[in-house]
Amino acid sequence: MSDIAKEAGVSVATVSKVLNGSDRVSLETRSRVQELLSERNYERRQGPRTEPTPIVDLLLREVSNPWATEIIAGAAEAARNAHATVAVNVVPDKRDHGSWLEDICARGTRGVIVLLARLSEKEKAVLHARGVSLAVIDPRGEPDPSVPTVGATNWAGAYAATRHLAELGHKRVGMITGPRDMFCSRARLDGYRSAMEAAGLPVDPELMRWGDFHVEVAFKHATSMLSMDRRPTAIFAGSDLQAMGVLEAARLLNLAVPSQLSLVGFDDIPLSRWMSPPLTSVRQPLAEMAATAVRLVLSHGEAPSSEDRSVELATTLVVRESTAPPPRATRKRS
Amino acid sequence: MSDIAKEAGVSVATVSKVLNGSDRVSLETRSRVQELLSERNYERRQGPRTEPTPIVDLLLREVSNPWATEIIAGAAEAARNAHATVAVNVVPDKRDHGSWLEDICARGTRGVIVLLARLSEKEKAVLHARGVSLAVIDPRGEPDPSVPTVGATNWAGAYAATRHLAELGHKRVGMITGPRDMFCSRARLDGYRSAMEAAGLPVDPELMRWGDFHVEVAFKHATSMLSMDRRPTAIFAGSDLQAMGVLEAARLLNLAVPSQLSLVGFDDIPLSRWMSPPLTSVRQPLAEMAATAVRLVLSHGEAPSSEDRSVELATTLVVRESTAPPPRATRKRS
Repeated sequence: MSDIAKEAGVSVATVSKVLNGSDRVSLETRSRVQELLSERNYERRQGPRTEPTPIVDLLLREVSNPWATEIIAGAAEAARNAHATVAVNVVPDKRDHGSWLEDICARGTRGVIVLLARLSEKEKAVLHARGVSLAVIDPRGEPDPSVPTVGATNWAGAYAATRHLAELGHKRVGMITGPRDMFCSRARLDGYRSAMEAAGLPVDPELMRWGDFHVEVAFKHATSMLSMDRRPTAIFAGSDLQAMGVLEAARLLNLAVPSQLSLVGFDDIPLSRWMSPPLTSVRQPLAEMAATAVRLVLSHGEAPSSEDRSVELATTLVVRESTAPPPRATRKRS
Repeated sequence: MSDIAKEAGVSVATVSKVLNGSDRVSLETRSRVQELLSERNYERRQGPRTEPTPIVDLLLREVSNPWATEIIAGAAEAARNAHATVAVNVVPDKRDHGSWLEDICARGTRGVIVLLARLSEKEKAVLHARGVSLAVIDPRGEPDPSVPTVGATNWAGAYAATRHLAELGHKRVGMITGPRDMFCSRARLDGYRSAMEAAGLPVDPELMRWGDFHVEVAFKHATSMLSMDRRPTAIFAGSDLQAMGVLEAARLLNLAVPSQLSLVGFDDIPLSRWMSPPLTSVRQPLAEMAATAVRLVLSHGEAPSSEDRSVELATTLVVRESTAPPPRATRKRS
């Protein structure tokens, strides 16, 4: 390194900066140093590790929820195993996507994984033109067949959760699903409806609510449903955070879980096991979903078509202490 | 771009790859293209946004806890405001730090923020030699005076929490702090001890436990303390996750919170407000701590000395529904 510095007429620190990709070196100096490095076969002497670590960019609207945490954790671990880096990009406002895309392309990105957000056609075209691969976890809006998508078997998971409640004897089961514009919310709602029908139970439109996967809206919906004359004896919450909102609504209305109200969540975040009582929930393999998306963008273009690359990973119902048969009085009444 | 491609004898896609920093272009080609770009003043025509976005690397041992989530969220937001990128690096094993440092230096890093982990002197020297700045949030072991450190006023927060319990009339107060080798755990324990002494209350060594900031160990400590003949009427948990463990222990022992057991957490993560009951907790400004660390590493070397750059941000006690006066029987007995 010191030979190269001497020959280029710069300091060793400058050569080091060039190797690090620092922007504090003028383009002229960088070119000169890189040419010398190239002439001396500097890279080859260092072995394969001097290949720059590829960066995989996660695009989120918010970090601060346990679902996102598990995705980030899974992506970071998968990236580490592949000697890649995961960058976390919080871009709450769609209008800022453009400048964000410029930024990440300028500093180099191997691929973008979009979570709970949506890129415009133009933005996708920019990424495509620059050879940046793209994957989506849980798409918003209609899934784009040209983009590989990773999700979980939302319909089957919701079906299993609702069947579990029906088998315990519940007849009035409330459902709080996610946002209207998300594919996974619609699939969960439909899984609930199908299982209710299969059990011969009527579906009351008053007991089906759109949420936003967060605590507060679910708290309001649960308070409203549990204050009805014929309140539900069970609620299926479309996320574990929404289940926390239902738990708090039940506590304030003096309804014990599970003896007076059964509750099932969705996600099975690590804290579900520590809720009061421990939550029955539909487990999504969030870390594995993230790892799949990371592998997809790193293996850019190696799968024959996006259809082959889009997957739904299996969900499983984890039964804990928040579900039980309905209270006797209610069973008689219904 | 197409002119440059023609002159360099490569495709437009290759020029684009060089601009993106892709590693799929040979060093020879990259140098040639960059030289042409430089001659044509390509960068200057694009304005300031073609400066590569600096990368700030977070080093964590684990992502999957709400404390880490808030730090990542705060860092990502601060980075976005500064047109920088936050990369999340989970390196659970100290032995892997070396190869990780090589990786991030090879792809370029502006600075490293270490959370709940520890770099060796040699690793710090590597970063220093390469001009990569370093900051630590909540150091493990003795803080290194040469490295800027960001934390919260742990001692004062613990003092305020314990005084709150003493003022409510609690005399036997248990404390579950964090890991032994963390500065913040020791400060929280000492704040508890000082407030107990100031209130004229004895400190029972049986009621002081070392935790690990996670749910499970706190659950075990709480179960053990709450099964004692003279059980504590209040517990101060060194983190909100630990408070969740105490809540579950209390539930299984049929102790109602707050009427039979008062509970204070530490951190004030967003979910604290949604615990059953909503948790009284010591708020750490986690997002602001993360933003401070990001600013520190991005402004590398601009502050006169590390002493001036190391800060403790203020904590505040947030009183919710998990604290109340002790039960009457216990008050008489003590």
